[in-house]
Amino acid sequence: MARFSSPQDPLFQRLNSSVAFDFRLAPYDLELSRAHARMLASRDIIGADDLDAIERGLTDIREEIDADRFEIRPDDEDVHMAIERRLIELIGAAGGKLHTARSRNDQVATDVALFVRAHALGAKELLASLMDVLLQRAEEHLDWRLPGYTHLQRAQPVYLSHHLLAWFWKFNRDVGRFDFCMRGSDAMPLGAGALAGVNFLTDRVAVARDLGFGSVAPNSIDAVSNRDFVLDYLSAAATCATHLSQLGGEIVLWSSEEFRFCEPSDAFASGSSIMPQKKNPDAAELLRAKAPRITAHLSALHGVLHGLPLTYNKDLQEDKEGLFDTVDTLELELQVAREMLRELHFDRRRMEEAARDDFLAATDLADLLVRRGVPFRESHGIVASLVRSAVDQGKQLAELSDEDVAAVAPQLNGGLRDVLSEGAWLESKVSEGGTSLERVREQIGRARAALREATAA
Amino acid sequence: MARFSSPQDPLFQRLNSSVAFDFRLAPYDLELSRAHARMLASRDIIGADDLDAIERGLTDIREEIDADRFEIRPDDEDVHMAIERRLIELIGAAGGKLHTARSRNDQVATDVALFVRAHALGAKELLASLMDVLLQRAEEHLDWRLPGYTHLQRAQPVYLSHHLLAWFWKFNRDVGRFDFCMRGSDAMPLGAGALAGVNFLTDRVAVARDLGFGSVAPNSIDAVSNRDFVLDYLSAAATCATHLSQLGGEIVLWSSEEFRFCEPSDAFASGSSIMPQKKNPDAAELLRAKAPRITAHLSALHGVLHGLPLTYNKDLQEDKEGLFDTVDTLELELQVAREMLRELHFDRRRMEEAARDDFLAATDLADLLVRRGVPFRESHGIVASLVRSAVDQGKQLAELSDEDVAAVAPQLNGGLRDVLSEGAWLESKVSEGGTSLERVREQIGRARAALREATAA
Amino acid sequence: MARFSSPQDPLFQRLNSSVAFDFRLAPYDLELSRAHARMLASRDIIGADDLDAIERGLTDIREEIDADRFEIRPDDEDVHMAIERRLIELIGAAGGKLHTARSRNDQVATDVALFVRAHALGAKELLASLMDVLLQRAEEHLDWRLPGYTHLQRAQPVYLSHHLLAWFWKFNRDVGRFDFCMRGSDAMPLGAGALAGVNFLTDRVAVARDLGFGSVAPNSIDAVSNRDFVLDYLSAAATCATHLSQLGGEIVLWSSEEFRFCEPSDAFASGSSIMPQKKNPDAAELLRAKAPRITAHLSALHGVLHGLPLTYNKDLQEDKEGLFDTVDTLELELQVAREMLRELHFDRRRMEEAARDDFLAATDLADLLVRRGVPFRESHGIVASLVRSAVDQGKQLAELSDEDVAAVAPQLNGGLRDVLSEGAWLESKVSEGGTSLERVREQIGRARAALREATAA
Amino acid sequence: MARFSSPQDPLFQRLNSSVAFDFRLAPYDLELSRAHARMLASRDIIGADDLDAIERGLTDIREEIDADRFEIRPDDEDVHMAIERRLIELIGAAGGKLHTARSRNDQVATDVALFVRAHALGAKELLASLMDVLLQRAEEHLDWRLPGYTHLQRAQPVYLSHHLLAWFWKFNRDVGRFDFCMRGSDAMPLGAGALAGVNFLTDRVAVARDLGFGSVAPNSIDAVSNRDFVLDYLSAAATCATHLSQLGGEIVLWSSEEFRFCEPSDAFASGSSIMPQKKNPDAAELLRAKAPRITAHLSALHGVLHGLPLTYNKDLQEDKEGLFDTVDTLELELQVAREMLRELHFDRRRMEEAARDDFLAATDLADLLVRRGVPFRESHGIVASLVRSAVDQGKQLAELSDEDVAAVAPQLNGGLRDVLSEGAWLESKVSEGGTSLERVREQIGRARAALREATAA
Repeated sequence: MARFSSPQDPLFQRLNSSVAFDFRLAPYDLELSRAHARMLASRDIIGADDLDAIERGLTDIREEIDADRFEIRPDDEDVHMAIERRLIELIGAAGGKLHTARSRNDQVATDVALFVRAHALGAKELLASLMDVLLQRAEEHLDWRLPGYTHLQRAQPVYLSHHLLAWFWKFNRDVGRFDFCMRGSDAMPLGAGALAGVNFLTDRVAVARDLGFGSVAPNSIDAVSNRDFVLDYLSAAATCATHLSQLGGEIVLWSSEEFRFCEPSDAFASGSSIMPQKKNPDAAELLRAKAPRITAHLSALHGVLHGLPLTYNKDLQEDKEGLFDTVDTLELELQVAREMLRELHFDRRRMEEAARDDFLAATDLADLLVRRGVPFRESHGIVASLVRSAVDQGKQLAELSDEDVAAVAPQLNGGLRDVLSEGAWLESKVSEGGTSLERVREQIGRARAALREATAA
Repeated sequence: MARFSSPQDPLFQRLNSSVAFDFRLAPYDLELSRAHARMLASRDIIGADDLDAIERGLTDIREEIDADRFEIRPDDEDVHMAIERRLIELIGAAGGKLHTARSRNDQVATDVALFVRAHALGAKELLASLMDVLLQRAEEHLDWRLPGYTHLQRAQPVYLSHHLLAWFWKFNRDVGRFDFCMRGSDAMPLGAGALAGVNFLTDRVAVARDLGFGSVAPNSIDAVSNRDFVLDYLSAAATCATHLSQLGGEIVLWSSEEFRFCEPSDAFASGSSIMPQKKNPDAAELLRAKAPRITAHLSALHGVLHGLPLTYNKDLQEDKEGLFDTVDTLELELQVAREMLRELHFDRRRMEEAARDDFLAATDLADLLVRRGVPFRESHGIVASLVRSAVDQGKQLAELSDEDVAAVAPQLNGGLRDVLSEGAWLESKVSEGGTSLERVREQIGRARAALREATAA
Repeated sequence: MARFSSPQDPLFQRLNSSVAFDFRLAPYDLELSRAHARMLASRDIIGADDLDAIERGLTDIREEIDADRFEIRPDDEDVHMAIERRLIELIGAAGGKLHTARSRNDQVATDVALFVRAHALGAKELLASLMDVLLQRAEEHLDWRLPGYTHLQRAQPVYLSHHLLAWFWKFNRDVGRFDFCMRGSDAMPLGAGALAGVNFLTDRVAVARDLGFGSVAPNSIDAVSNRDFVLDYLSAAATCATHLSQLGGEIVLWSSEEFRFCEPSDAFASGSSIMPQKKNPDAAELLRAKAPRITAHLSALHGVLHGLPLTYNKDLQEDKEGLFDTVDTLELELQVAREMLRELHFDRRRMEEAARDDFLAATDLADLLVRRGVPFRESHGIVASLVRSAVDQGKQLAELSDEDVAAVAPQLNGGLRDVLSEGAWLESKVSEGGTSLERVREQIGRARAALREATAA
Repeated sequence: MARFSSPQDPLFQRLNSSVAFDFRLAPYDLELSRAHARMLASRDIIGADDLDAIERGLTDIREEIDADRFEIRPDDEDVHMAIERRLIELIGAAGGKLHTARSRNDQVATDVALFVRAHALGAKELLASLMDVLLQRAEEHLDWRLPGYTHLQRAQPVYLSHHLLAWFWKFNRDVGRFDFCMRGSDAMPLGAGALAGVNFLTDRVAVARDLGFGSVAPNSIDAVSNRDFVLDYLSAAATCATHLSQLGGEIVLWSSEEFRFCEPSDAFASGSSIMPQKKNPDAAELLRAKAPRITAHLSALHGVLHGLPLTYNKDLQEDKEGLFDTVDTLELELQVAREMLRELHFDRRRMEEAARDDFLAATDLADLLVRRGVPFRESHGIVASLVRSAVDQGKQLAELSDEDVAAVAPQLNGGLRDVLSEGAWLESKVSEGGTSLERVREQIGRARAALREATAA
């Protein structure tokens, strides 16, 4: 820049230059430039011949990039400067007209918004394909019984289908978050100029339409300082990654020798450098491990924005690397989760054995007493005594003698055996959203509808 | 609980008991219990007389709480147990029937959802009243000029109205986030029981309608493990608090002797314990300071949920304190921001003086050259040389001699004076969303419409 | 403050006032004031009679506080103002002399440093008592075998003593962190005044000696803006809480029906509101759950300090609540962990059964081949084939026929049985720090020495 | 690995493979392998000829890496596998012996510890060179006056030397943090094997000595699961980066037209793509902006470790990328800060003008009254009234008439002029660590000693 009399310090250049990472925005920047140039020509701010030259130049640059022939120069501070520099090399003076009526401040905000929007849509698609696999696996394991856990203690038996669908609904809410991210990034920043608008009667609405935005940002100062849409994406990603970490954690647990409810396929496991017998659920562990990284990217951007005065500050350059890493991490995670689940082997025998633990029916016994007129709080106490009596004798409930039962819970009178009969405990969960087969089938129908909606949107 | 043979360790009780903080949920828990009891009666799970007794008991408890007469006992582990214990004391055995067909797991999820929904609505109202003040202040200062800043360097002049409206639009987006939070928490967890549904044919839809939910959670396992709605609230709050921290930071800056663009009223400032001359913008500083606290609450909950297996785990108890502190902090902040802004005194003279710095017109000179046929990139270089020439001579641009100008920028030829004339630089920003008065007036119209919508929703 | 003409807005007061939480610093503030007054008198800045009155007043205030009779007034902005106000009420004009040659800025920094130092010492003591219990439990379970896990897969057997000592060393490192916190807070801020030093020839070294500091802060500007020592405490606490969360997580896991390696005592477990059979490891879950909260307090303070200009800013008020909550949480956690571990019941039979899984000896077989001249990488492959052969046949290694073994690993020739004999796999881990009994005994000796050092320091 | 019957899924490989980033550890891994091989030979676990071959192979690999000729293969899961694979290619079977008596678990922990230790030392050196520049600049600007600020309001005047030294002491404490990081990582993990120790009587102490560790980790289980030293480095870096962000923020502020206390050299500033007059302090902005990124890396690792059971879990792979980015960011920041400060131009005239604001002497007037017998709290009130009287009349204090002064503060009686005389307010700050020249000179002496110590350590 001509106002300076001495060159930048190389150390400073290393800190300042963003082209090494923001060059990833090149496709969006080219798309933006093309739309901007068309508008400039339509408003006679540049000539038709200028537009032709610019469009040709932009096409050539795109080809250079696609063919990995585009050469970044040491002085190219960022992707915008690299592309403008190359454009001028290719088409001469007309290239110098492209930056009329825009600034890097509105340009970079728009590039990033385009990037966020493309990947919010991408996340929705990947979520839908993951939900599709969950739904298939649920249908395949409709009536497999296993214990449901609270506090990692066996609590009440459920069907595996019901359990798998719990994950379905979590991811379905994530779809809604990425949808919100689309709405939140719908107003195009471009045309805000450096911060105050531009000295030309531009047509922002036309550019917005060209680039797929629904409207234009109503305030130029806000437009160049706003990174809410990045926060929205990161927040959606953080919650989604947290869901994936829970899913991963559960598969790690279920793959242990002690649970052995499932086993990852060889394609999603690793061996040990020293222990030849090991088969490690690395994919699941990594799903678990990645959430804090994404949450941290969200925190970091909140931190960067904290206390920052209007309008554009260089600090905003920190919006990109965390975003890019989040996109790459999340999209890879969603694919790995889907494929790992598709091939995950469940062990029916192990699950059923665990579900047979008849202490899991304790609530049902208490509810039986309720039906026989005992207030719930009281019946809970009666059954707790029964459990304690069994635990003290090292027995299951069904192994208690009639005398034992009668001594503690005379009101049960025979009901014990009925309640403890195979499967009774699951099928009695008849409330909406409960684990009885009828309710699970109903739920599968809803899930199918939700998936259709997620895919359509 | 009867299954245990020895009492809880007092240290453990201190760690485990949540009643000291979750008693705040009592109003929601009572509301929930009333709706639940009505449904139980409508389904003949409890009798009409039980319902009468329960409703009476709940009303009495509410009165005790409102009159600050409700006594929490050492053994009341949480708000739910405290209320149920008191209910049984008040109405006897019928009180023990209330916990039929529900569990603390679905109960607490529902209480928290009710709390979140009430405060998401509250945040929207407070945001709307803050936006209203911003709009008023913008209208009052429609044509006051000040420099817009990038990199905290004077960049281009803007109107104060335009600047204040930038904040308006940020908060308007926050309204959208709390809206999303309402949609995301619209499915009622209650009825999921401990995790598997309940042994009674309950009517969840009726309860949901009673409590203001739009639907019922479709999967009981998901329902008791889901805290997404808390994340959604915290995320909305974190972004909103970040906006407030930026606003606060700017007022601190503008209140410095060096800027002196504004001065907080005495009602929002503090003195010093030792320096009698000090008038400190503490309110603005605290608005700045609070964002990391809220962002941290969001991170903490992401952290708690990370890797957690299904379904309910005690870890979920950590969802509350951070949420409560966020609600209290944010609601207080929004009110303080509104009142501080309402009384903030702007200094027209200081702002105009700063805006008169004619280097701020450099872009406009470059754009003039563009109109005279010079490609922008070239005209930028020409004006940069002109600036350097002025800086070297310690002059403003308007003080350069005609010879100086002609030597560097012959194409300017007289245009310099026109461009530098009072106000010309602002009024030329005619693009949509720009700072020209016409555009700002247009923007005010849009803002008014947005405010109506925010208030209506 | 007399410079103001109108009173503070009540909303602002709610945001601004810190007395509700910083009153907790009162004991430190009184101690500080006493030392300060003595120094003022020793330098003839106040009279001996003033000192007498002040000391008497401070004693009275301390008694009021201890007896819970101290009344906080609405206008008491913070603990310092409350105490000074009360002092003047009690002793009149002399009380107004106490604030000579100090400011709230250096005063609060010193109060907080005193608080941090007291609780860094407290954390060290609690850690030592936890380490003591771990060491005892290790000695009690010296030769109990269980599988060591990597990737939550059984990897190699270890002794329970060895496993418990792993936790010992983690906590021992935490002792070092709180030690560092003591060193990092050793320079007293008091005497820095508002920021520039004071107008009196005070004797800071004497005050520092009185208050237990090793030196005085060398730069007054740094002294009032420095909160590094709070970061140091929070960082030590965050790492310590992370260790506790890992310990808690492991106990939750080991308490599951599937592992059942241990069972918490009734004193550290909870029941369910609905499922009478449940015994939940709530204490362990809460140890797991609390780490993100403390880590978040650390992040929050980093966030508050980010980008803050010198010297004191009101933002620094945000240093306290997170610190207080961290201290309370961590100290309670350390005590609960200690007592829960003291009473934790381990199940020898379950652990030994799990350790008997002879795939755990695979590395040892590979090492046997190494001794017989096979390069490790090759021997690893041979044993892996052996394992696969066993897995395919649904057998343990010891159940493979001689022919099977000879076919895959002719070099083993008889060694298989020796290696697989009871206990051989553990006792062969003879390297320093390894799991052989001799090494574990050696380690216990070191642990005892480390504990002595931790207690002494 | 031979135990598997089907290959890894390419998606999983992308998630699982770490060689793309951990190849950076190659120099440490080679150093480790060399020391390990020597020890194996000294204990006759491998032959002398094996050692020769291995050392030759490792040297060749180092040369390939240095010459950028080392080829990473798609199947090289991580740096350890890549190097071992290449070693076997180069030297045959002997290469397969290197992995005897070690595991990737202890190997990677040791590599990372070596990396951390090298960069902790590096950070100390960079800090010392930054402190050196601060000390020089302080000496150059010994008696330049400027206002000290609290709440960003002018508070009391200080010398620029004193202000610059405040930063010196902050960075000096950071040196202590990196020192602690050295102590905390002094026990070598290698030799812990997979988790239980190894089946050979190795000599860990010899290896530790070779690699510059002070001792060996006393417990193999702890050794492979411990990442405390990474947390220690990240925590030290986070606090240091926070200091840099404060320094950066101050320079941004001081470079504004409104302050103009300093101006960055052209070598550390940037221009605007659209506004030709702009000279932006980008280097300072980026120093400010980078702290949240580093703090987030610290949070992320705390998050990854949260709740993780013993011993090694794949999640630990997440320890590296955040660490590497932190090292690169911090080391670059420290260099940029040093060079930017070295060339920063301070504007004596602007600072002195600001320091001349005589309200800054208000505390000194109050203290004068104290010397004349008025209790401080009372004198504070008197001077506050004086200030208010001046503010109301739009005057400085020195411009108040004798009548005005006498009316409010009869006790001042002439003292006003003395206190307000040039420089008096600074030179009266005679307390230790205060801003009087004598004290600053004393402080410079201490700083020089501290710098010597930081450099020596």
